[in-house]
Amino acid sequence: MAGKVELRRATLRNTMISKAETRITANGLKNLRARDLAKDAGCALGAIYNVFGDLNDLVLAVNARTFKRLGTAVADSLADAPQNATQQLIVMSHGYHRFAAENFNTWRALFDIERAPGQAAPDWYLNEMGQLFAYIDAPLSVIFPEHTAEDRALLTKALFSSVHGIVLLGLDEASAGVPAAQLDEMISLTLSHLASKS
Amino acid sequence: MAGKVELRRATLRNTMISKAETRITANGLKNLRARDLAKDAGCALGAIYNVFGDLNDLVLAVNARTFKRLGTAVADSLADAPQNATQQLIVMSHGYHRFAAENFNTWRALFDIERAPGQAAPDWYLNEMGQLFAYIDAPLSVIFPEHTAEDRALLTKALFSSVHGIVLLGLDEASAGVPAAQLDEMISLTLSHLASKS
Repeated sequence: MAGKVELRRATLRNTMISKAETRITANGLKNLRARDLAKDAGCALGAIYNVFGDLNDLVLAVNARTFKRLGTAVADSLADAPQNATQQLIVMSHGYHRFAAENFNTWRALFDIERAPGQAAPDWYLNEMGQLFAYIDAPLSVIFPEHTAEDRALLTKALFSSVHGIVLLGLDEASAGVPAAQLDEMISLTLSHLASKS
Repeated sequence: MAGKVELRRATLRNTMISKAETRITANGLKNLRARDLAKDAGCALGAIYNVFGDLNDLVLAVNARTFKRLGTAVADSLADAPQNATQQLIVMSHGYHRFAAENFNTWRALFDIERAPGQAAPDWYLNEMGQLFAYIDAPLSVIFPEHTAEDRALLTKALFSSVHGIVLLGLDEASAGVPAAQLDEMISLTLSHLASKS
């Protein structure tokens, strides 16, 4: 049975995650300071490190929420997609683009978080990523029935990374001169070529 | 005729760029501090701002050097490439991967530099990017002779962004679970699919 102390701790944990989410949404991961969060949550600075160990772990908790929302957004976009496998890939990728554009700072935090060299991603992260990959794998297995599961897994990751790259450089217009308005067209063009067969 | 003052200023400028390049190479853009650079260059802190306006402009000067080296690396990889257009795209992309892996911190600085919202990239950056795009456009015009120049320009940017995304997430292994050892294979797989025609 959870005692009062555990309950208060769980409440404080949720408060901190929400406050950190609000700060990241408004100002980006780069400007997140423990001092500000303690003030937002009405607690001592030390309480954050008491609950989360370090600020990175708190950001990971925010990222877990973002990832869930991203998964939902991609699944929702699929609901209206035509029964054509290539079109499904395109619709999901446009959904990814839309999510990134509408949640720019929290989306960037998914990838900009610091990791010690060689440190693996946490299990929940790999699970959420695996779910996203499953959405991509399904249409790919229709388009390329001759591929082995291993080849398809590699293509799935390559495809995700490709769309991520297009969205990333596209949303940072100055980076590659990619006009944001043409982003969806670029995604469609790339995926149509990718899914066409020789 | 350049006087002594101009000459000294130009020398100091080059020294600062080299010192900043060394620091970025060793510790990444994130850990670059004006204070350290002034010490490295044996000058007052104010001298940096006197020559460069701000630290960002100094990083841009480092990035200009990196971009030149990147262009050379991609061009060099093409020299040994087979006369097959798809293979040329693959060879260049592998060259891009190799450059990114061997120059990780300076390569990241190309994309991680801060820009004020809406601020365009400087002309030299767009010129270097244009040169890279020209390398990609050539084989694409062989593979897709029916495409308009406009379509091809969009596909070129999409292709660059795709390979960039694969390399970026691949070199940050924790991000997408992409095994670094299979990066080149992923690139080959993606580009082979992309270049195949229905």
